This record gives sequence, structure tokens and C-alpha cells, in this order.
Amino acid sequence: MSANSNHWVVTIVCPDMPGIVHAVTGAIVAAEGNITESKQFSSDDTGRFFMRLQVESAADRGVFEKALAPVKEKYGMTVSLDIVGRPLRTLVLASTAAHCVNDLLFRQRAGHLSLDIPLVLSNHSDLRQLADFYGVAFETVPVTDDMSKTLMERRILDAVEDHDIELVVLARYMQILSPELCRALEGRAINIHHSFLPGFKGASPYKQAHARGVKLIGATAHFVTTDLDEGPIIEQNVVRVDHSRTPSELMSIGQDEESRTLTQAVKWFAEKRILVDGARTIIFT
Amino acid sequence: MSANSNHWVVTIVCPDMPGIVHAVTGAIVAAEGNITESKQFSSDDTGRFFMRLQVESAADRGVFEKALAPVKEKYGMTVSLDIVGRPLRTLVLASTAAHCVNDLLFRQRAGHLSLDIPLVLSNHSDLRQLADFYGVAFETVPVTDDMSKTLMERRILDAVEDHDIELVVLARYMQILSPELCRALEGRAINIHHSFLPGFKGASPYKQAHARGVKLIGATAHFVTTDLDEGPIIEQNVVRVDHSRTPSELMSIGQDEESRTLTQAVKWFAEKRILVDGARTIIFT
Amino acid sequence: MSANSNHWVVTIVCPDMPGIVHAVTGAIVAAEGNITESKQFSSDDTGRFFMRLQVESAADRGVFEKALAPVKEKYGMTVSLDIVGRPLRTLVLASTAAHCVNDLLFRQRAGHLSLDIPLVLSNHSDLRQLADFYGVAFETVPVTDDMSKTLMERRILDAVEDHDIELVVLARYMQILSPELCRALEGRAINIHHSFLPGFKGASPYKQAHARGVKLIGATAHFVTTDLDEGPIIEQNVVRVDHSRTPSELMSIGQDEESRTLTQAVKWFAEKRILVDGARTIIFT
Amino acid sequence: MSANSNHWVVTIVCPDMPGIVHAVTGAIVAAEGNITESKQFSSDDTGRFFMRLQVESAADRGVFEKALAPVKEKYGMTVSLDIVGRPLRTLVLASTAAHCVNDLLFRQRAGHLSLDIPLVLSNHSDLRQLADFYGVAFETVPVTDDMSKTLMERRILDAVEDHDIELVVLARYMQILSPELCRALEGRAINIHHSFLPGFKGASPYKQAHARGVKLIGATAHFVTTDLDEGPIIEQNVVRVDHSRTPSELMSIGQDEESRTLTQAVKWFAEKRILVDGARTIIFT
Repeated sequence: MSANSNHWVVTIVCPDMPGIVHAVTGAIVAAEGNITESKQFSSDDTGRFFMRLQVESAADRGVFEKALAPVKEKYGMTVSLDIVGRPLRTLVLASTAAHCVNDLLFRQRAGHLSLDIPLVLSNHSDLRQLADFYGVAFETVPVTDDMSKTLMERRILDAVEDHDIELVVLARYMQILSPELCRALEGRAINIHHSFLPGFKGASPYKQAHARGVKLIGATAHFVTTDLDEGPIIEQNVVRVDHSRTPSELMSIGQDEESRTLTQAVKWFAEKRILVDGARTIIFT
Repeated sequence: MSANSNHWVVTIVCPDMPGIVHAVTGAIVAAEGNITESKQFSSDDTGRFFMRLQVESAADRGVFEKALAPVKEKYGMTVSLDIVGRPLRTLVLASTAAHCVNDLLFRQRAGHLSLDIPLVLSNHSDLRQLADFYGVAFETVPVTDDMSKTLMERRILDAVEDHDIELVVLARYMQILSPELCRALEGRAINIHHSFLPGFKGASPYKQAHARGVKLIGATAHFVTTDLDEGPIIEQNVVRVDHSRTPSELMSIGQDEESRTLTQAVKWFAEKRILVDGARTIIFT
Repeated sequence: MSANSNHWVVTIVCPDMPGIVHAVTGAIVAAEGNITESKQFSSDDTGRFFMRLQVESAADRGVFEKALAPVKEKYGMTVSLDIVGRPLRTLVLASTAAHCVNDLLFRQRAGHLSLDIPLVLSNHSDLRQLADFYGVAFETVPVTDDMSKTLMERRILDAVEDHDIELVVLARYMQILSPELCRALEGRAINIHHSFLPGFKGASPYKQAHARGVKLIGATAHFVTTDLDEGPIIEQNVVRVDHSRTPSELMSIGQDEESRTLTQAVKWFAEKRILVDGARTIIFT
Repeated sequence: MSANSNHWVVTIVCPDMPGIVHAVTGAIVAAEGNITESKQFSSDDTGRFFMRLQVESAADRGVFEKALAPVKEKYGMTVSLDIVGRPLRTLVLASTAAHCVNDLLFRQRAGHLSLDIPLVLSNHSDLRQLADFYGVAFETVPVTDDMSKTLMERRILDAVEDHDIELVVLARYMQILSPELCRALEGRAINIHHSFLPGFKGASPYKQAHARGVKLIGATAHFVTTDLDEGPIIEQNVVRVDHSRTPSELMSIGQDEESRTLTQAVKWFAEKRILVDGARTIIFT
């Protein structure tokens, strides 16, 4: 990549029909772009076409958008255009469990996760020292009843507004969001579910898993929707266990899966690799 | 192992208390046995103790049982005693799908699965040629209504009786067993469920999995109980999939998991490695 | 797909430069084709561009080739054009071990593997009955010395010629091919290596694995080259083992990995999903 | 477990012969112990017997040792006796890479890893702040030539002496230990190898892995011996990769495997679950 060129990431969603790729790549040729990565998918379920491109080009955003404009209009496309690797403005919601927050912050600092995290919001103060270590602001809003829950949700929305947040990560945030908040954050809030969905929903999944003597336990990262634990699945992992595991050991093993599953989902989101097709996700890895 | 010695497999279940292992191993010393494999587990859930031993000994069955008798009585043990590697008399129930039956018969012939399969019973004739190739008797009992279903179940029970069957394998046998038959076969009938339980139960799991966009699909082998798909889980496997998979591809991938999961469960059962602890299985691998 | 349209699979390799995708998709638009699948990759290692497309079109081969011809010439492309799902003419080489041959033949018959296997050639007669069952011709050429080895290799080349063979599968064929034969079959012969390469090469890998106490064992499918066991890797799998496994158990576990790894590689090859980039393979799954 | 009882972990190694388990459990009965966990293994390779027990008992160490003494002498046993969960005095050696050290310290603080880490010793100062956060002393000894290397090794031995260190963890410590130091630490130093052994040894394994186009990459934790990278293997993990991964992405993926593989090995060591049988490890999980 030459010194004064940009590296763009482009995502495209539109009704599927012949000629789309030709038209899109024509616009890129016009903008003197060079495609470095390209993935596409036609959904038989919804009849929609999905595409993600990475393009090197000396063109600035205006030139690029202008080149794409007629194609966008002709095919009825939803297009996003961004710089590869730009840190995503991310709000982290937490409670008391440290494993997911630690994994996110460690990898962000290590440079494996391109996030800009202006704030960790929690209903408990347990993780303050952890956030301090990573130099991230930390704020506590106790949630004990409906009124304090409303205050917390207002604080979340304010933080989203103030910091122009692009992604809200529920990093084992143990509160159920109100339908209003779910709708306000639709498509940009990711939750980690402490189970392999659709498996053991609700409370105490590791006790349930133990009682049923499962041989695999896992975790599911999914978008938040008003339908609790039923949002589009982004990533899932499992690990093998046996009869000798206590519920608390299952929990410890499960937490590792939770961390890595959530981090993976966040990473893909930051890299614009996740597109939503109805109840399913398209992941362009 | 010297030429005229036996290789015994012993399983023991009893209420947990101190001194059991010392007592059992004392009996084995008395029978001049040499322990070649030993696994044990104390269940906190049920307060029961489980043990599986392999013992080389010149003693015959009578001597061995006599040595164990006082220990058995003192601790209220359920004891099983068998020869390591003795082929298990196994009845296979099938419908039209070949993958699980093929895997069982191939591995049995290849010597990886110590089974004696006198009969494959099916409600369809599709797999006759496969059974013929492996030299296994094949019989068809069409099931189209309640009456024919009753005839099939009677035939199953007769076959179990006639061949002194120790294990019934439902190798994608697509009929629901009556509660009476489930009870008659309790603890010695293994089913393969075309899903990662507790996940998508009931019909068309691969369509459900596709519709939900899951990232992992799998299979579960479990004991048959009257509670449909809720018997103790023996083994589970999953494999990673992505958005590009059609329901029919998911099915093909899932079938591989079904075969290997069922075969693994059958192998462990034949080797007396599975003990049941309430709703859970103890697997001494 | 309408009744009288074709489903084409196209693979393209050429030096990487801007505009290729636009040009290729323009040719497809000209042939009134609809892209149903598309994957591409630019290799930083070799500066080459790789693409695989599936295209539905009413055009016949002549029309399609004519549309692609100018693009092909302009960019110096190597292009292959085939019908999706056309059975690949495949020669299987075997010795005494049944597991890989059984897996290939079972899946071919089950419709999961689109192969046309006119012949299984072996230096032993052990697998004749298995081939008979699947209705595949079987021929034995004993290999005991240099002269008989030469005869076998001549027979292989004749069979390749007679049946217009597109793929030679070494399904645990325990003979080292001569450099001449390796060169003659370059890019169209796949071997399964009984180890996780680069790991334990050479003889008795499971004994070596046992002696070293490895915790994972696996298998590698790769293209045959004159550099023994060093051809481009196509697929690898591993499975977890522990200290209690004997060398013969490791072998049995390893054989399962060999079967599934080889079958996967063959399936990808038959579907034109494997392109070679120097010492590496590009797999468009 | 009653309030004033102990929970002991006992490991036993001796020549294999009949009657050992009976004798050992007899001693435990004599000490009024209750076995809560028990694993054993007879090695056909070396003719040795290995056992690990967890025992609840009101007996103190003296009583316990006295009960075991005659058995120990009769069978020529090496016996270790410890308290379950006692933090292991551990010295961490590090260089510049943070991932392994971070994982160890985070899990130790989270209570998942029972270690007492008095010191992190490094040839670089990069990880000082990380160690500070976790409240662990940090010391730098630059290693640039033979003399400074000797000083570092002397410092290591002094730290082992001063803190009565039971385990030395080479958490991506990029220096080769001298044969003298290897011998001094034999059986109590664990290294993480940035590759799936025996695979790519030596420098730049991820470049080698990329060049060869491997489909799996992994990590190996092993005991340190004078034979570089050939010490007994404790744990191995792999993860699937494809052609699109750059060497730096392979490194990032590989580092995750390194962290979890090393942490697992350290956890097992702290719990006395690892016994050495010649060139192999017995892991009683």
C-alpha cells in the first residue's frame, strides 16, 4: 500500500440479481481502487445479496462515494464505507464477573482488537481496578429496583450519545435490557450467553448442564433483540467435559468459552465482517 | 497375560463409604488377580460409588465371584463380571438411512467394535443389500399404522428374547417406541439424536438449525427412556458450520457426527464403560 | 435454476492486478450468467490472483468460453470451466487397509462424493470383496521387487490413460511412487499421510507418537510430489489422546482421522475448490 | 468435609505388581481417610505403576505418613503428600511477550490457578507494569552476552533457592537455558513451545507454518530438559487456519493457543496431576 493511499472496507446489502459484482467492481476500477479482500453471499432464504470488500485506493471518501453512488441507486443498495482498522467506539456494560472484560481490555491493549473504549459502565464496582489498570474510565450505576434500572438505562443511552458509540458489548452484564433499550441498540449490541444456544436458557445453565450430564458445554455470542436470548447468533464454541466436573468447574470452563466467544464476535463486528440476514448472521471471515 | 489366564472386566455400583476400594482390591488379591485398568467415581449428586476394573487372573468365574461375594454383600453392591472383549449380542433397528448402520457394520468387521449382531430389523427394505454384504441377517416389518407398529414391537421383543440380546441400537430408527417397549429395554437401548441436545428437538432439526443460523451442529447419543429425547446422555459431538450451508449440507455434515457419536457410545457400552447415575452417565474411558 | 440452464464452475489463476474481477464478471454478464458462488484470493507470497465462481447460465460451453476469451488473454489467465457436480474420473490405489477405501466408496454411493471410479488398483487382493460390493472393478498387481513395481506403475499410467483419469487417490497405498510417476501425476494425485505433518514422518508414526507421549494425533492429506511427504497440504485433522492409549489404539483412532481427512480432500478436489499457490494450497470452501 | 479434617493429595510411583492398590487403600483406611478422587495407570513401556489420590482425613501429616510408611517400603514407592489446593511457589520467567504472563496472573488472581508467585524475572522491562498491576514483584536482568546470561542464570537459581520455588514457568522466555540450569530444574520447569511439536522447531515457526500452508497451528507445553524442545510433552492444542492468514495473524492465533496450553499445564502441575514415565507424561485429569 503506497504511503498516501487509503485502505477502505466496504459492505453492501441489496436484493440479489445478476450483474451486481460487475457493477460494484466497475465503480472500484473507476476510483482506481485495488481489491485486497472480497467475500459475497446470496441468501436463498431472503433473496438478498451481501458483499464485503477491502479496497486500497488513493481516492478520498468523497471520490469513492461518488463512484459508488449510481450503482447504489440502481441496485437499491445499503452501503457502508469505512477505513480498515479504525478503532470502533465501544461501550462495555459489566457487572461483577471479570473474565470477559479482562479479555476485551487485554486484547485491545495488545493491539489484537481495534476498539476505542471510552467507558465501562457497571451496576457494581468490582471491576473498577481492572478498568483503571487499562486506563479506561469506569462508572457505577447501582441497579436494585425499577427506578434505578431506568436510571441505568438512561445513563447507557446518554453514554451512547455522548461518545457516539458504535457498539455496546454486554460483557456478562447480568441485567435484562428493557424492550425500548433493545430497540434503540438494535444491530449494535452484542451479548454473550452462558450456554450453547438453543440449549439451556435462563438461570443457572451450568447447574442444568451438570444435572443433565452433558458432555459438551459452550457459549453463544448474539445480537441483542427484544426476544431474550433469541437474537441472531454470531459465534458459538463448545468444549468437552465429563461426569467428574462439578457445577463450579463447569462454570470456570464455561467462562473461558464465554470470553473467547465474545471477543471473537466483537472483533468481527469491529472489522465489519458481520451482516444480518433476517434471523441469521452472515460472517465474512 | 499368560496363556491360561482370563481378562475380566468388573463394574461395581454401591452407596459411597470409606473402605470400598480396599475391600474390592482385597478380594482381587485373594483371587490372585492383577489389576490392569481401574477407574472410580463418587457421585456427590446421588451419594453412590462407581468403579470399573480390568483384572487378569487365572481364576475362573466361580472363584472370582466367591472372592467378591462377602464384599458385595457388606457394601450392598451391584456387581457385573464379564470377559474383556467378549462380543456383545446386539440388535440393530434401522429405517432407510444407511450412515449409522454402515459405520457400525464396517467397524465391527474391521475388529474395532466387539459386537455379535445376529439381526438388523427395519421398517423398510432399503438396507438389505448392505446387511447382506456384511453377512448379517436382515428382516423387514413395515410400520404404517398402530397395528403394524404393535407387530414390529412384538418382533423386537421376540428377537431380544431369541438372541438373548444385551444391547438394542436405534441406528436412525425413525419410529417412536411405545412406553412399554422403552421400559422393557431400559438401560440397554441406545438412540442417536440428530441434534445437539438439549437443542433442537423434534422434526427437521437441520431446518431449524439453518433458520437460526447456528454456527455449530452436532449429535447426541443417549439411553432410550419413556421421556422422549431426555434419556441419560452418553456422548455428544459438534462440528463448525457457517452461513453458506444449505439445510441439506447441514444434514450431510450432521450425519457424519451421528455415525461417529453413535458408534462411540456403542463401543463404550460394549466395553462396560458406561454406568448410570440418575439422569447422568458416568463414562470410564 | 431453470430447466435448460447450466451450472458452471469456473476457476481462474493469473498475476494479480486491479480490474480482474470487474473484467471477469463483465464476461459473465455478457454470457447472461448469474453468479451463485464466488471466492477469490490474492497471494502476497506469489503475487498471483485466484478465483472460483459458480455461474448459472443458459449459455453452452462455446458461448461461455467465447465470452471469457478476451479477458483470459488480457490478464494471462489459466481458466478451467466445468459443470457443477460432474463426477470426477478417479483411480483409487490401495494396499491392504480398508478404512480409506471404504469411506470413499460408501460416500460415493451415498451421493456425498461426486466421483466416477472405474477401477481400484491394489498390490494386494484383500479389498476385492469390498470393491465388488460397491460394484467397482478391482485389479491386483503384486509389488515385490523393482521389476514388479515398474509393472504396477506402468499399469497405473495405462489406467490413467484408458479411463481419462482426472484424479489418483492413494488410499493408504503403501508404495513410494517413482519420481517419474510423481511428475506424470503432478497436481492430480492426493495422498493421505498417517501423521500430522510436519510431525512424525516415515515408518511407524503411531509408535513414535506413543513413545513421545503426544496429546494429539492426526492426519494430513496432500498432493503427491517427488519430495516425499512434502507436497502442498490440503487438509489436516487431529484428535486428542492420552497416556493410556496403546500404539494399536492410536492407530485405530488415527485411521478414522485418515479416512475423514482424505475424503474431505477428495471432495474439495472434485468440486474444484483446491488451487495451488507454490508450496501452499488455496481452499475455497 | 468436616471443619477440622484435611484434604490430602497423594501421588505414588513404584514398580508395578499385584496388590499395590489394596495395600495403599489399606493404609488410608488405617488413617481413617476417605478417598474422594483416585486415578492409576500401569505403564507397559516401563513396568511402573502410577497413582494419584485425594483423601479426606482428620489425620495430620505425621499420622498419614506413618500409615503409609510400611507400604512405601515394601513396594519401593516414591510418595508425595500435600494439601489439596495449597498454592505452589512459582517463579515466572518472561521476556517481552505479555500473553502468557497475563493469562497466568489473571487466572491466579481470579482463583482458578492456585499459585504463589513471589517474582517475575525477565530479560526485558516491558512487562513491569503488568506485574505491578497484579502486585507481583518484577525484576529485570538484561541478557546480551555470555556473561550477562550467566548472571541471569545465577539469579534464577538464587530466586529458586530464596523463595523455595517448586515450579519455574518459562512464559515465552526467549532464552535457551544452559544444560546446567536445565538439570538443576529438571522435572520442575515447564516451557511453552510456539508450535505443535514435533512440527516446526526453531525460529519463526509461524513463518514456516505459513510457507508450508498448514491447516492447523498449535502449541505444546513440555518439561524443560537439556534436549531442546524434546522434554516430555504435557499438553498440546491446535486450531484451524486457512490460506488467507498472514504470518502475523497466525502468530496472534498461535499466541492464544500458547496461553491456554501453558496455563493448563501449570494448573495440572500445581494440582500434582502430572507424573513422568520416561519420555512421556501421565496426566491424571
